[in-house]
Parts: sequence; structure tokens; C-alpha cells
Amino acid sequence: MAVPGTAPAAAVSRVDRRKARTRSALIQAAQGLLAAGRTDVSIQEITERADVGFGSFYNHFASKAELFHEAVLAALDTHVALLDTLTAHLRDPAEVFALSFRLTGRLQRVQPQLTRVMLSTGTSLLLADTGMPAQARRHIRAAAEQGRFDIADADVALAWVGGALLGLLQLLDARPELDAAALTDATAERVLLMLGLKRRDAVALASRPLPALPRG
Amino acid sequence: MAVPGTAPAAAVSRVDRRKARTRSALIQAAQGLLAAGRTDVSIQEITERADVGFGSFYNHFASKAELFHEAVLAALDTHVALLDTLTAHLRDPAEVFALSFRLTGRLQRVQPQLTRVMLSTGTSLLLADTGMPAQARRHIRAAAEQGRFDIADADVALAWVGGALLGLLQLLDARPELDAAALTDATAERVLLMLGLKRRDAVALASRPLPALPRG
Repeated sequence: MAVPGTAPAAAVSRVDRRKARTRSALIQAAQGLLAAGRTDVSIQEITERADVGFGSFYNHFASKAELFHEAVLAALDTHVALLDTLTAHLRDPAEVFALSFRLTGRLQRVQPQLTRVMLSTGTSLLLADTGMPAQARRHIRAAAEQGRFDIADADVALAWVGGALLGLLQLLDARPELDAAALTDATAERVLLMLGLKRRDAVALASRPLPALPRG
Repeated sequence: MAVPGTAPAAAVSRVDRRKARTRSALIQAAQGLLAAGRTDVSIQEITERADVGFGSFYNHFASKAELFHEAVLAALDTHVALLDTLTAHLRDPAEVFALSFRLTGRLQRVQPQLTRVMLSTGTSLLLADTGMPAQARRHIRAAAEQGRFDIADADVALAWVGGALLGLLQLLDARPELDAAALTDATAERVLLMLGLKRRDAVALASRPLPALPRG
């Protein structure tokens, strides 16, 4: 795929720009359908919603499942970039992980539709080697390498903590009366215990002051 | 719904028996579709696959989502009954929970299709108040009441441990080379830490000898 902005404008052909627009329109259509819980649609319905030709679908995606999967990861990209920015000054990878976890749990109340898109893919999201799962895996691996986390395998640890986070987001989605910030921090504390931190360290990392998330 | 076998045969009318057969055929058709990852089907495709009249669908289910949800819970009923049997002799609810968790993680290698059906609903499965989620919630609540688990809310605790279990099952489904028994026990140990057990107790409960699961 062409990435306008990484090359001089003149080097990006009109065809490349059109391709990028088509891909982006398909991903946006898929995000809308995911948020509405409507994954049982035909490819024709998706291309109509995106206002692109039916035939162009297969120039970009091998299947509907691939489109939906990429749509979820793309929807989370802004949050992933925000986490990178907000944690850039931290030295301790365990603290980077904890802060990212706590801000992602809070995402449910701030951007409920985005969270619903995330939940729609279920735990298969955790297998992705790009986007948010890849970022979390990097944080976990760095914390393990520095002896902060006591784990044998970052993929397994991500399955645990990512699964627990998705379970929490699902509960918050279903029960608007719950205190999302308090429950997310309680979850972060237990997740840090699960990753091998001492209780005192887990409590400390799960209760540091947090920057606020911008509304989506 | 009529439940043949709980009333004298003569009291169950032919209509009730036919209704039960129709419902069962729809659930079986849905389980087959879920296992194949094909939830993007029309209700007509489901009734054709079940070999029942199109109109009969709405006598049993309000929507396709409701059918799929019930199909997943029904598919797990045999496993739930097995866990009740295998844990009936245990006094410590934390041990009941640990044994159930360890046998359910092992389910992926023994009944991969059933596990795939379970994963297809994602973490929304954890919200159900019947079947396997209800059983796990009972075990967690009993262990909390006896002071074995240190948790504030069984629904929240189920979101954590159920999410972690689904994350593990998803990883095992994707990577057949992993040692499912060893990873499940490692996960159980960390999940017990998360629920407030001391490390020594968590290690002990996660390494007791286990009965084998029958193949499905």
C-alpha cells in the first residue's frame, strides 16, 4: 500500500492516492459495522457502504475476516501512539506496562464504540503481531529482560493479561454503573501480581497519578 | 421448552417433542457453523441446515445472536457436568476452582472444535448467568466466602480469570506445538495468585494429580 507523506508528493501517483482512499474507506466502513455488531454482512454491503467498486475489495483484502481484523487494529492506532507519547519519559518497563494497561481499561468509558470494536474480535486480537498487541508484547518482554516480570514467555503472558483486560472491558461495557477507573486499577494490581511483581510494587504501580485520556 | 424425561412419557405431547427436536436441530446447526467460523449466515441457511421450517426459528430464538449464544453454552454443558462430578468429593472451593480451570485449559487439545465454538463468542461468554460461567462464578464466590480468595466481587474476578483462560485457549488453538497441560497449569498458578492465594498454596493447587478428560 502507498503511504502518502513518506515520499515527496510528486512521487505519489494519482493511482496510489486513489488506492489509499479506497482502502481507508473500506476500513472505515468495517469499523462502523463492527461498532454496530454487524459482521454478518456481505462484501457487497461493505463496498456499498464504503462507496467503492465491488471489485476493488480484493485488491486490498483477501477476505472479510482480514478486513475486520485490520479495521480493529487501525482503530486502536491513535491510542497506541498516545501510549507511546505518555510513557516516553518512563525508565521502568513495568511502569510503562502498568500505565498503558490502566489507560486502556479507562478507554471503555471514554470511547465505548472503539472498545466495542475491540471486543468484537475477541481474544484472537491478542495474536496480532502489529498494533496494540505488539506494543504490549514489547513492554512485557522489556520488563522480563530487566528482571521486573517473572515470566517464561511474552506470548503466554500477553494471553493472560490481554485476556483479563478484554474480560474487564466486556464487563464495563455491559455494566455502565461500575466505577471503571477503580476497577481498572484493581485489575492492573492483580495483573502485575500475576506477572511476578511483589504486592508492594504492584500496589504502587497501580496507583500512581495518571494523565487523562482525550475524548474520542 | 418441554424437557422429556422429567415427566411421564404420556404427559409429553407430540407437539412438545417436535418443538424440542426443532430447537435441538437449530442448536446443532449453529454449533456446526460456529465451529467452522461461519456466523455470517442468514437465518434461512441455518433452518435449511437444521432441516426445519424457516418460520419455526422465531418460535425458539429472538435473533441469530441469541441462538449462537445458547449454542455455545449448550456445547459446554457436558463439560460442566463432568466438572461437577470430578470435583464433588473436594471440600476446598479453591481446589474445585483450580481443578476446573486446569481441566478446561486442557479441553483445547482434547476437543479443539468445542474450544473454537467457545472462542467464537469472545469474552461476552463470561457475562452469561447460566452454564459454565455460572459454575465458575459459584466456585469463585464460595472460595471468597471461605476466605480462600481475596476478591471484592465475583463478577469482576470471573472477568479476570475467564479472560485469561480464553486468552490461553486462543493461543493454544493457534499454536499446536505448545505443551497445553504445562501452560494451563502455569496459568492456573498465576490466576490463583491473582485471586489472592499465597504462592505456596497456588503452586500446590496447580500441580495436584488430575483425572484425564474423555475425548469428545
